[in-house]
Amino acid sequence: MMKLLSHPFSPYGRKVKIAIAVKGLKDRIEVVAVDTNIPDNPEITRSNPLAKIPALVVEDSTAISDSHVICEYLDSLAPTPVLFPKSGVERIKTLTLGSLCDGILDAALLLVYEKRYRPEEKWHAPWQARQQSKIDRCIEHLEKAPPAWGPSPDYGHLTLACALGYLDFRHEGKWRAGHPKLVAWLDGFARAVPAFEETRPKQ
Amino acid sequence: MMKLLSHPFSPYGRKVKIAIAVKGLKDRIEVVAVDTNIPDNPEITRSNPLAKIPALVVEDSTAISDSHVICEYLDSLAPTPVLFPKSGVERIKTLTLGSLCDGILDAALLLVYEKRYRPEEKWHAPWQARQQSKIDRCIEHLEKAPPAWGPSPDYGHLTLACALGYLDFRHEGKWRAGHPKLVAWLDGFARAVPAFEETRPKQ
Repeated sequence: MMKLLSHPFSPYGRKVKIAIAVKGLKDRIEVVAVDTNIPDNPEITRSNPLAKIPALVVEDSTAISDSHVICEYLDSLAPTPVLFPKSGVERIKTLTLGSLCDGILDAALLLVYEKRYRPEEKWHAPWQARQQSKIDRCIEHLEKAPPAWGPSPDYGHLTLACALGYLDFRHEGKWRAGHPKLVAWLDGFARAVPAFEETRPKQ
Repeated sequence: MMKLLSHPFSPYGRKVKIAIAVKGLKDRIEVVAVDTNIPDNPEITRSNPLAKIPALVVEDSTAISDSHVICEYLDSLAPTPVLFPKSGVERIKTLTLGSLCDGILDAALLLVYEKRYRPEEKWHAPWQARQQSKIDRCIEHLEKAPPAWGPSPDYGHLTLACALGYLDFRHEGKWRAGHPKLVAWLDGFARAVPAFEETRPKQ
């Protein structure tokens, strides 16, 4: 039995949980909630010295990370649906979309960490604006042409859905205003992938 | 002609430049230095809304990012040396090592950004300690068994070399003390891959 170290609030963990569901691997992986707010939490660091989740422990303490790598590994365990096109332009498009949406998440997380890990007198508005502008530009870019999928959503779409889901969860869904195509896109994703709703974080 | 948007000081850009060299692709890619310190620099944002480098512009403004995805794309353009094993345990090991070393870089960059983008009264020692501990644990972990390569270094080794190179460049090489195996490993990498020395950042 493999173990996924994650947390219900982690958007990167949510990606992996959705991948587990759509690939039909739920009975092979136990999901374990770990707390990344405990400094140097040994529950995580013995598997991932970065102390980051998600990490997939496959045997003993050998772990696979990050979420992108875990999803690629899961994709190799069952033939369908295909999360990573095997080669060519399609593969690079999927990977670039995944990377772009991980970048949205990285910026959104840094905005959360600013308030979680610093007293208010050490918040720095220009840094916050720098991160927010990355998110805003990506949303504008994606609104122009939300990425369509073929037979089923792939890893890139899954990452976009989790990024928008995190902006809903931690940033009050402010991205929605003025971006009707992307809102409709996320509704379509939720209809196509029931695991999206099943993994929605709840405060 | 493709264009690589990067900067001589970017460790992620260095990874890609080494990949270009070892894959024999120098005559197909023009390297363009861009400044990420200019807020919302349109030279970057028109290709990558995250405003991050490196980005590989393949035609018009269509760009591939991040450094991992670019390296995978470059790997597909020439058969040898193999940067990404095609499948199986070897591939996942390479990707996990790459992700671990990107994590070292992310933490090392956040430590640099702390001082670059905030006035001193807004530096926060516990945040800095949190990032430093990620780096330190990874170095301890890698010292136990520096990752050997087969016929030639792959993407994982290349990322490790650039992470250590960045710690030399921006963090005074403090990682070297007490880690003789990793120091020897980097020396061996530099001998195996002349492009490592050729891309060394100079202040």
